[in-house]
Amino acid sequence: MAAWGERLAGVRGVLLDISGVLYDGGEGGGAPIAGSVEAVARLKRSRLKVRFCTNESQKSRGRLVALLRQLGYDISEGEVTAPAPAACRILRERGLRPHLLVHDGVRSEFAQVDTSNPNCVVIADAGESFSYQNMNKAFQVLMELDNPVLISLGRGRYYKETSALMLDVGAYMKALEYACGIEAEVVGKPSPEFFESALQQMGVEAHQAVMIGDDIVGDVGGAQRCGMRALQVRTGKFRFVHMGDP
Amino acid sequence: MAAWGERLAGVRGVLLDISGVLYDGGEGGGAPIAGSVEAVARLKRSRLKVRFCTNESQKSRGRLVALLRQLGYDISEGEVTAPAPAACRILRERGLRPHLLVHDGVRSEFAQVDTSNPNCVVIADAGESFSYQNMNKAFQVLMELDNPVLISLGRGRYYKETSALMLDVGAYMKALEYACGIEAEVVGKPSPEFFESALQQMGVEAHQAVMIGDDIVGDVGGAQRCGMRALQVRTGKFRFVHMGDP
Repeated sequence: MAAWGERLAGVRGVLLDISGVLYDGGEGGGAPIAGSVEAVARLKRSRLKVRFCTNESQKSRGRLVALLRQLGYDISEGEVTAPAPAACRILRERGLRPHLLVHDGVRSEFAQVDTSNPNCVVIADAGESFSYQNMNKAFQVLMELDNPVLISLGRGRYYKETSALMLDVGAYMKALEYACGIEAEVVGKPSPEFFESALQQMGVEAHQAVMIGDDIVGDVGGAQRCGMRALQVRTGKFRFVHMGDP
Repeated sequence: MAAWGERLAGVRGVLLDISGVLYDGGEGGGAPIAGSVEAVARLKRSRLKVRFCTNESQKSRGRLVALLRQLGYDISEGEVTAPAPAACRILRERGLRPHLLVHDGVRSEFAQVDTSNPNCVVIADAGESFSYQNMNKAFQVLMELDNPVLISLGRGRYYKETSALMLDVGAYMKALEYACGIEAEVVGKPSPEFFESALQQMGVEAHQAVMIGDDIVGDVGGAQRCGMRALQVRTGKFRFVHMGDP
């Protein structure tokens, strides 16, 4: 294995995943991962550019940043690349009016989007809102469309909260894909467009950037396919035995 | 297209799907499909053997048969091949203790099964019980196992109730498969073992039997792979445009 200095030669920017890297969510807002508050502070004092690149889709960026600041992180809303705002841009560009299957905590991100007479479905990490009734409604909306469009904010299999592993949006995306015989469009990691917009917002080229995350598919694989370097942390959802990543 | 007489030459037994062929479920127990009560009566007066081969997994066979008799069908519990009893046999044979993610209406079928300290998960068409909490619990049980076993009672994408199309167990099976990186074992149509047990119960060879159903994959494809003939009705979930059957 090459030495750290060599592996990180020429790096000008660092993209940090949030859940499982900075903190584990959960009861009472979750808990910071040991050493991460200091690590962010040191990165920000360095000459490196720093950006937070998350698939968090239960909370608006405002809520997420407020929570992280409360936990001690030096972070502001403008430093966060998250899937909900990216999805809103796509919806506007393509004239799509979504039926939203999302958590109430992220609904405010879609306040400016026309949701009347829906011609697509957007799903995010809806948590408890992934009821049978809500899933069935999303399914029925898709089945009524001539050209069903399903947009999924991320495709994660699961994430780690302080108490346990939790099912992520990817599982429900697969359920709707199968039921409707369609393929979802993923907004968020590992989509190349998403990484590219984060790089652009940071003003750094792919070969000058490193992504740090806990998801071997969403973070590491996705970043590498964009020409970035990537590091997988051994916190968050990291498990020593991988059960066949899809 | 060959004439009916020719296509059905040598047929000695008829396997009938129930949901979408005999009746559509729904509010107040559902409604018979026009002509089906009489068709069953005529079949039973003929020299053909008749068996009902269903993936119904929301209701016990007892409840299902009581409902169908109320709707006017000549049917008894001993004539029904259903996935829950087949799953119970498999669980016993393999010493599996399931965590059950099933509808309360079918739980009685598992009354004799040891569910302590689970070493597998069984999912059925749980309907409203497909809450996030229940799905997450099933996911967590699987992730704790060294050799996760997921048994799914059918793999249907959706079925038709009187009011609308409804998500079926297959969608949730896919969700758990993806989240855990595993492949489910399907008990029910289109599993060959399931059709074979129905044929055996009827005392008819595959080449002497015809399956009548509304599902192109579960009924028609499954039966044909077992060497049976099959007919797809244009009731139930049948749609003129198929959106890419998986």
